[in-house]
Amino acid sequence: MFTFLRPIAYCAGMAERTYGEIPGYPPGSTFANRNALAGSKVHRPLQGGICGGADGAESIVVSGGYVDDEDYGNEIVYTGQGGNDPRTKRQVADQKLTLGNLGLARSRLDGNPVRVIRGAGGDKDHSPTAGFRYDGLFRVVDHWTATGTDGFKIWRFRLVAIEIRDLPEKLGQPAAHEPVSRVEATIQRLARSAARATEVKRLHDYTCQICNTRLVTPAGPYAEACHIKPLGKPHNGPDVTENLLCLCPNHHLLFDTGALYIDSDGRVHDTINNTAIVDLQLTDKHPIDWSFAEYHRQSHLTDNETS
Amino acid sequence: MFTFLRPIAYCAGMAERTYGEIPGYPPGSTFANRNALAGSKVHRPLQGGICGGADGAESIVVSGGYVDDEDYGNEIVYTGQGGNDPRTKRQVADQKLTLGNLGLARSRLDGNPVRVIRGAGGDKDHSPTAGFRYDGLFRVVDHWTATGTDGFKIWRFRLVAIEIRDLPEKLGQPAAHEPVSRVEATIQRLARSAARATEVKRLHDYTCQICNTRLVTPAGPYAEACHIKPLGKPHNGPDVTENLLCLCPNHHLLFDTGALYIDSDGRVHDTINNTAIVDLQLTDKHPIDWSFAEYHRQSHLTDNETS
Repeated sequence: MFTFLRPIAYCAGMAERTYGEIPGYPPGSTFANRNALAGSKVHRPLQGGICGGADGAESIVVSGGYVDDEDYGNEIVYTGQGGNDPRTKRQVADQKLTLGNLGLARSRLDGNPVRVIRGAGGDKDHSPTAGFRYDGLFRVVDHWTATGTDGFKIWRFRLVAIEIRDLPEKLGQPAAHEPVSRVEATIQRLARSAARATEVKRLHDYTCQICNTRLVTPAGPYAEACHIKPLGKPHNGPDVTENLLCLCPNHHLLFDTGALYIDSDGRVHDTINNTAIVDLQLTDKHPIDWSFAEYHRQSHLTDNETS
Repeated sequence: MFTFLRPIAYCAGMAERTYGEIPGYPPGSTFANRNALAGSKVHRPLQGGICGGADGAESIVVSGGYVDDEDYGNEIVYTGQGGNDPRTKRQVADQKLTLGNLGLARSRLDGNPVRVIRGAGGDKDHSPTAGFRYDGLFRVVDHWTATGTDGFKIWRFRLVAIEIRDLPEKLGQPAAHEPVSRVEATIQRLARSAARATEVKRLHDYTCQICNTRLVTPAGPYAEACHIKPLGKPHNGPDVTENLLCLCPNHHLLFDTGALYIDSDGRVHDTINNTAIVDLQLTDKHPIDWSFAEYHRQSHLTDNETS
């Protein structure tokens, strides 16, 4: 008795997906209509609210189209797509974890940022009075289901604004591999970092290089990209795949806290019991720069450990 | 040829440790001297820079006492204690991961906030011109070793300011167990949450209630406290131990993403393969309110799953 009346987002495939900011369109950029918005590539679909698919979601439009949306400014509880009648804005069917909904869940797992665009129809405290406005990058921090106002199952996504902290370049010492221009926004660095991380995770099919665990969630597999030589001052490790490992959260924690280290032969050592426990899983497609492992050994081990 | 000339922080034991803000002393509170500061309990030791021990660190003073400190305002790279000559401010010996240093590492693992007090001797851009000033709560996000300016091993701790986001109470619906007054600061809620979490982790000796894994780092064991019914709008789960599980990071992720659920008999189910996999590890000292598990089943499972 119903059809999915609302057009679903049609986006180009995985290869073309762009996470993070679109050059030339900083937060606050405005667009007269959906044509102008799509032309900017800030949000590519002409009608859909979510630009995304199984590989992730890159942008959403919040414009009052769904009765269950909640907009708190820096935090948005966003209703997934599907089952909505655009004429009445009411739900007429259950939503599923597919298409753009799956994309938002995937972006949560990958930690990729989502561009948020607000339209004039949205919450009056946070929306432009006319047209559309790009309001910056958000992270998807949770997703769950609920019975919406109209009695149908909806998917809900909590998005939180990414805070940009711009530190003075006091220590100098840019990373050896990739000197970062001060002009280049932190926001771009963040998006780039997520892209490298996703690349490494895909090369290992989201399988931990230490324990071979592959965590699978209803939205797909999950792993973490661990910087061997940490990013940021004073370490200034580079954001390159040679400095990344694909790990499960447990081994990421153990590595970062110095409970584990990797020797120059790629063996993983347990510093608590001071024994080699396993060989790091390696693939030719993802070479490691062992000098970063050496840095980690020097900087993260405690008094009584081999280094 | 050297002694540890600088007095180490002497604090009361675990039972008296207070994480989070001290009532009556909001960020920006000033103190004429260390006596006044200690009297306020914002930082209790009269001389030590770190108030902490094996169970955690509650506060630090940044006042230029260590040549390797770096203060970026919202981010501080703080030198651990020990091996420092207070007359010259130079390092004269290696530092160890003990006492206050271990406390800061422990606070990182537990996610407990650390009060940061700046003194007039610190970085000129970020310090008061006289006396001491409480500058709010920070999190310890990393710790590692380095060879300091003076050629000795130092421990370094990265602390980042906790951002306080105060959302309008749009949805209403306070948690059933513990209605939260709007006047009560978010900052206090945060500290309270960490205290409950630590309590639950200790009751299970930091062992995952699903897989029995106990992750051990050089600073001690690590586990995560997982809210069964999530905190925050729109779930409004209460911050009580009956709503918490002690999990390893891997199972925390799987639970939060709906890859696992817990039935009313305490059996853990894998929603990907739709099978019961194990019984939740329980202890009489930590009863669970199963209605929260029911909420999680209803809200976090995907289309094709038993609920």
